[in-house]
Amino acid sequence: MTDTFTACRASDVIALLRPTFGDRLLISRAAREQHGAGESWLPVALPDAVVMVQSSDEVAHVLATCNAHRVPVIPFGAGSSIEGQIIAINGGISLDLSGMDRILSVNAADMDCCVECGVTRQRLNDELRATGLFFPVDLGAHATLGGMAATRASGTTTVRYGSMRDLVMGLTAVLPDGQIIRTGGRARKSASGYDLTHLFVGSEGTLGVITELTLRLHGQPAQRQSLLASFPTLEGAADTVVAALQIGLCLNRIELADALQMLAINRYAKTDLPETPTLWVELAGSEIVVPHDLSLFEQLAQDAGAVRIERAETAEAANHLWRTRHDALYAARALRPGIKGISTDVCVPISSLPECIGQIQRVIAATGLHAPLIGHVGDGNFHLVLLFDPSDAKETAAARRINGTLVELALSMGGTATGEHGVGLGKKGYMAAEHGPALDLMRAIKRAVDPENIMNPGKIFDL
Amino acid sequence: MTDTFTACRASDVIALLRPTFGDRLLISRAAREQHGAGESWLPVALPDAVVMVQSSDEVAHVLATCNAHRVPVIPFGAGSSIEGQIIAINGGISLDLSGMDRILSVNAADMDCCVECGVTRQRLNDELRATGLFFPVDLGAHATLGGMAATRASGTTTVRYGSMRDLVMGLTAVLPDGQIIRTGGRARKSASGYDLTHLFVGSEGTLGVITELTLRLHGQPAQRQSLLASFPTLEGAADTVVAALQIGLCLNRIELADALQMLAINRYAKTDLPETPTLWVELAGSEIVVPHDLSLFEQLAQDAGAVRIERAETAEAANHLWRTRHDALYAARALRPGIKGISTDVCVPISSLPECIGQIQRVIAATGLHAPLIGHVGDGNFHLVLLFDPSDAKETAAARRINGTLVELALSMGGTATGEHGVGLGKKGYMAAEHGPALDLMRAIKRAVDPENIMNPGKIFDL
Repeated sequence: MTDTFTACRASDVIALLRPTFGDRLLISRAAREQHGAGESWLPVALPDAVVMVQSSDEVAHVLATCNAHRVPVIPFGAGSSIEGQIIAINGGISLDLSGMDRILSVNAADMDCCVECGVTRQRLNDELRATGLFFPVDLGAHATLGGMAATRASGTTTVRYGSMRDLVMGLTAVLPDGQIIRTGGRARKSASGYDLTHLFVGSEGTLGVITELTLRLHGQPAQRQSLLASFPTLEGAADTVVAALQIGLCLNRIELADALQMLAINRYAKTDLPETPTLWVELAGSEIVVPHDLSLFEQLAQDAGAVRIERAETAEAANHLWRTRHDALYAARALRPGIKGISTDVCVPISSLPECIGQIQRVIAATGLHAPLIGHVGDGNFHLVLLFDPSDAKETAAARRINGTLVELALSMGGTATGEHGVGLGKKGYMAAEHGPALDLMRAIKRAVDPENIMNPGKIFDL
Repeated sequence: MTDTFTACRASDVIALLRPTFGDRLLISRAAREQHGAGESWLPVALPDAVVMVQSSDEVAHVLATCNAHRVPVIPFGAGSSIEGQIIAINGGISLDLSGMDRILSVNAADMDCCVECGVTRQRLNDELRATGLFFPVDLGAHATLGGMAATRASGTTTVRYGSMRDLVMGLTAVLPDGQIIRTGGRARKSASGYDLTHLFVGSEGTLGVITELTLRLHGQPAQRQSLLASFPTLEGAADTVVAALQIGLCLNRIELADALQMLAINRYAKTDLPETPTLWVELAGSEIVVPHDLSLFEQLAQDAGAVRIERAETAEAANHLWRTRHDALYAARALRPGIKGISTDVCVPISSLPECIGQIQRVIAATGLHAPLIGHVGDGNFHLVLLFDPSDAKETAAARRINGTLVELALSMGGTATGEHGVGLGKKGYMAAEHGPALDLMRAIKRAVDPENIMNPGKIFDL
């Protein structure tokens, strides 16, 4: 909620920005509502205005103006964040970067590219098609690459290619006072000074605004092969994954669902899949390695007790197989239509996964709630969709409590509160438990970089 | 050089630390000389004392004491840094961490381990042998893992596994005021808060002391195969590497030497290798993929004009082949026995490598100096050993000037002053050119974390 003093300062800033931005400065309720929500289950809070920027210099102008008047700035890409990263809890200016959508260069020989922050991953991959290269982070949302960098996003191929942490080689950022800096570069490695690139990746707009990115690309694999493997227990599925990672099979994706999620998929997609813990697997590489590793994977799965293994023999069958995975969230929500779902996001060492999931499922069972599970099992990251009726105080409290219990459990196993969704407002309460005194170091850095606390204030931690 | 006031404060600190450390506090000239030199070509400067620590708590005690008295602290691992990182230009305490050498845990299922900072990479790999896992960063020096993290080191297998940047999952660090923090953790990915792990990796002891590391391990490949390929031009070698990276061959190492380096090797190792640009290549993976990719690589090399390709048919032949690469630095120095060599360390986008090397070789030729070249070509990183007689002012000036010209050239191509040796004192003068206004952000972070400027002061940048 914007307090009166902030609102006055915001009015001043709006008046100062109006001559530059004209009708790219929006104050309609509809525009502000669209920019203050996101995909989170948390309550909406509106910015005082939305500014549609088109260059780093324009971003610098907005930031310098807001900094001088101590007005919050909330960077906005596609609005797909799910932990409340874009909710304007202190009002201020929503900085809409979606118009900064130029692909600045593609360097095929060096397998890198430079893009503005508002380019979406789909758009980049469309542009790259003719080069034989692609950018691998494939999260579910139609997100911008700037937003994905700011939240340190990952996806189903992270088991092979890494997350935004691993694929951003450098960036342009605008600091709160309007200074424009460049970090990193196009060299594949560097030992030159502090790693500012990684400081901005995952900082969720609290240190400045990422306006350009240099990204590492990969070659499209010559062949892909998919299969679905059903196990009597989660342990069997997890053991298979551990073994496959250790011998270095050419895994491209490896995704897990629990029995309840499989039931939800069968209902939603009218399929007849075994309602037991299941792995979706994609292997990718050269024509010679894929069939070889596929046989090895099937052997590992059988050794771990797989009850059914179904290869996708055609591209069409593979698409159908992955569509069941892709629609899992919709299938989960359809178990109780019209109600809310909190998506958990812990990530633990893979060997702890069965124990972590087993323990939290016993907690959930005791509450009577339903929470289907989907996991990026190769990373040790999984999501429970905690289905609850927000008009039922008891269910709401139980869902929130389970979220917290799961984070504590993951931390006790050496894991993290969030594998890929970020902190925002939703995970802020767990930061002290996860980071201990390191949280104070984060605060010291925030104060040094953003002394007026204008950049997305109140996100990740309070000062 | 320690000024008088610093020396007085250092005496106070030594008196305060003596009761705790006893004969683990060294003030002999021999000990101080050993700790103030390193492997750099820069002049030695001695610390006032050396403290041999054995735990994070002891590190915290030393740092808190030095912080209260504003006495510099210089972390010391194996003393193998080559840009003057351990030279005590402001005196103070050399903090010898080599006694913190416990391997705390090895988690084979999760493919990670936790070690104290003083463990060397060889020691860790010896301990890992029975697990089938290994830690891949294989730089030439007998370095500690803490030192490797602090300088963001890499090695010949970085083309496949990445550098310390990519393999440190988390760490324990002691801050200048003695606070002990933990960053990151054992989860394979996390979107939880600022990436403090990457902030410490590469900070060269200027923000605090890394005392423990969580490292990502990899499975030993089932098979390896090596070859040596000789090309008429650098372009041919570089084109082969670009093509091999794009189609994703299972490269484990790919190293380049120029004609002069090959001449040096032939003289030193009494070999009869073609004295033209040469690639050492190791492919590694499963029994099925290695022979397949080897044939593909040979085809690519032939297409690019290779004049000779020599497979190592036995393990003994492979060892011999790689020994010529390993001894390259000694071979280079033997071209002019008894004189000094500055090792350059720029890293550029791979497609710019031939142009970068060609331009600097023309500059070198005009000076009459000799500078054999070895490169981690898969990363775009190469080292010229600029051989010069330090008693000859003209040669010394020329060698320094070439080092600077090369950095400017690399920066103009989107590269970096240092791919893997770090900044220390040797590359400090190029930081403003490389980072522009981002250097001021590094300074702001340094001031926030180390307000008394006790941690390795004067390294990377001046405040």
